[in-house]
Amino acid sequence: MSIDPGATLGAIRDHKPLVHNITNYVVMNETANAILALGALPVMAHAKDEVREMVGLAGALVLNIGTLSEDWIEAMLLAGAAANEQLIPVVLDPVGVGATAYRTNTAKRILDVVDVAVLRGNAGEVATLVGVEAEVRGVESVGGGGDPGQLAREAAKTLGVVAAVTGPVDHVSDGDRSAAVANGHELLAAITGTGCMSTALTGCFLAGKEDAFEAAVEALVAFGVAGEDASVGAMGPGSFHVGLYDALAALDPSTLTGRGKVS
Amino acid sequence: MSIDPGATLGAIRDHKPLVHNITNYVVMNETANAILALGALPVMAHAKDEVREMVGLAGALVLNIGTLSEDWIEAMLLAGAAANEQLIPVVLDPVGVGATAYRTNTAKRILDVVDVAVLRGNAGEVATLVGVEAEVRGVESVGGGGDPGQLAREAAKTLGVVAAVTGPVDHVSDGDRSAAVANGHELLAAITGTGCMSTALTGCFLAGKEDAFEAAVEALVAFGVAGEDASVGAMGPGSFHVGLYDALAALDPSTLTGRGKVS
Amino acid sequence: MSIDPGATLGAIRDHKPLVHNITNYVVMNETANAILALGALPVMAHAKDEVREMVGLAGALVLNIGTLSEDWIEAMLLAGAAANEQLIPVVLDPVGVGATAYRTNTAKRILDVVDVAVLRGNAGEVATLVGVEAEVRGVESVGGGGDPGQLAREAAKTLGVVAAVTGPVDHVSDGDRSAAVANGHELLAAITGTGCMSTALTGCFLAGKEDAFEAAVEALVAFGVAGEDASVGAMGPGSFHVGLYDALAALDPSTLTGRGKVS
Repeated sequence: MSIDPGATLGAIRDHKPLVHNITNYVVMNETANAILALGALPVMAHAKDEVREMVGLAGALVLNIGTLSEDWIEAMLLAGAAANEQLIPVVLDPVGVGATAYRTNTAKRILDVVDVAVLRGNAGEVATLVGVEAEVRGVESVGGGGDPGQLAREAAKTLGVVAAVTGPVDHVSDGDRSAAVANGHELLAAITGTGCMSTALTGCFLAGKEDAFEAAVEALVAFGVAGEDASVGAMGPGSFHVGLYDALAALDPSTLTGRGKVS
Repeated sequence: MSIDPGATLGAIRDHKPLVHNITNYVVMNETANAILALGALPVMAHAKDEVREMVGLAGALVLNIGTLSEDWIEAMLLAGAAANEQLIPVVLDPVGVGATAYRTNTAKRILDVVDVAVLRGNAGEVATLVGVEAEVRGVESVGGGGDPGQLAREAAKTLGVVAAVTGPVDHVSDGDRSAAVANGHELLAAITGTGCMSTALTGCFLAGKEDAFEAAVEALVAFGVAGEDASVGAMGPGSFHVGLYDALAALDPSTLTGRGKVS
Repeated sequence: MSIDPGATLGAIRDHKPLVHNITNYVVMNETANAILALGALPVMAHAKDEVREMVGLAGALVLNIGTLSEDWIEAMLLAGAAANEQLIPVVLDPVGVGATAYRTNTAKRILDVVDVAVLRGNAGEVATLVGVEAEVRGVESVGGGGDPGQLAREAAKTLGVVAAVTGPVDHVSDGDRSAAVANGHELLAAITGTGCMSTALTGCFLAGKEDAFEAAVEALVAFGVAGEDASVGAMGPGSFHVGLYDALAALDPSTLTGRGKVS
């Protein structure tokens, strides 16, 4: 086993796994298109009457708390339990944790009840979940959290997950192994939902590779490289956003691994 | 009467009918923009307190079950009944039917209770509704369903609708008349919601022409031609998606009919 | 004090206020990206369990009734009350008022209970709220409402708000002061949600300047100038839409005020 995003991307495109998302209203279209551009198949389904059945068809489950309400939380817990029973990996995006108690408590509740393979958040969100002081303004991390590599290790150990703390440099840890991913571009911070997209793509890589630590690192390499490619010729956040889907679809399995800036 | 998408497009742009959509969260923006680019007026409204009144203002009603929950199903049934009373045509998109029992049962329930003018789905979805074996992975048809032209005829007869089965070639039938539409481009399959857009545009054409079979064929010609135009210069799914709205707005009523590949 | 959108834009970019939106499903992504492109921070949150806490972090609250249901109305009322207690300015977008009684009644209910700083709507919506005859087809104003400058003044006086009536020329009034803004481009009417974007940007300017009349005028100048810039090179509604985010991000505080067409 090794970190080889190109190989996993090739496998994803060959097998086209279904990735089941219970996610927020803001990014439903955008994350579905990112998953499709990468080469997997997205489905959005949140009805309590169908999430158990839907997740059974999926290669991974993405839970994202960006726009919460009670019915959606219950659906997430139901789907998470069904995923765990069937050994389908779960990735959680704790959007806005630290901004309101409702978000913080919901993320903790999911982490308590569901066996989460990967937790993907920004520094402020992850810091809040491990009790480190940080500031979250709405859904943006605006300070604190300390050293992000240390934060990822601590979150992994405390919460029993692979923690992926994204920012200018991304830090991933399973408690034992740690990696930093320096791919990406500053325009990724200029559009909404890029964090959610990285979570959705983490779901794709979890569906393509068993080792959750490696899958999380590989997803961030793939997304970061696509961001780099999309920045070429972008005139601002709008054209960058469009180019990001083109770049995801154009990712080349034969060169992707070599372009990773992993340390 | 004849298949003349250019003439109907001209009528739509002259009269700007309102098209009422009760649709899924993933494609609300995209289908609204497709309707607007074509030249009609979209409205999204799902509250049980207003759907009867809203549909009364509309030239067509679009029901799309892509992201279901109980309140939305009840709103669809209420709006469908009101549309039927007022002879406003209804188009149904059975998104993901065959993937979960909840979706299959909901589509059947709507077909039982509401007089649906056009059923627009992929082969797997339509096959599931007529009891032919097929595979639906999430919201994608991935196999089975048999010959799609035969499937459209069978669905039309069994379900009492105009059936529009879309794919690389689209097949439309009212049981007596049948047509195949070979317009389109493979990039249409690379972005999410293009099936939903074709359903929404079917709503526009139903608002512009009484013959539901002809309206369904014409809508697929118009959407397919727009897809062909959008593919010119597209660098991938992102730029194709953007170009699709430009192409819909640029459709020329005087040339559209001649560009149709209908057999 | 004076109308100086460039200065306020500079302040917004320096302080990056959080703008809390309870808005419709159709435009969540688009308004979040518009706010982010301008230089503020958006958050979408509608759970009754968190809106009071979230709005307390915000510089402005945006209420938009584009896709209503009961839970959302209650959340809007709760958030509005909390905003009023904490002197956080509220902007209301009465989407589709006049089309159904449910929308009209909901907008009136919010105006009754919440102290709204700015009401931003089209002529048909605002006319309906002040009892002037007008026609609203779905969410589009298609006639009536009389002289829009007079309508803005009357709405301001009757409803006790700053009224911003947008159209080919925008009219803003607080009852005493009135202004017309002639910036903009006809392609703004070709995509869905541009009215909602102008409301969201009004929220940003309210977070950047205390005088609500001036903030409303400045927001419409900024959005109109961005529309003018986005029209350059646009091939239709799709490419214009993309260019609009690029243009918002590229707005130059040092030239913006001089480009305003305010009378």
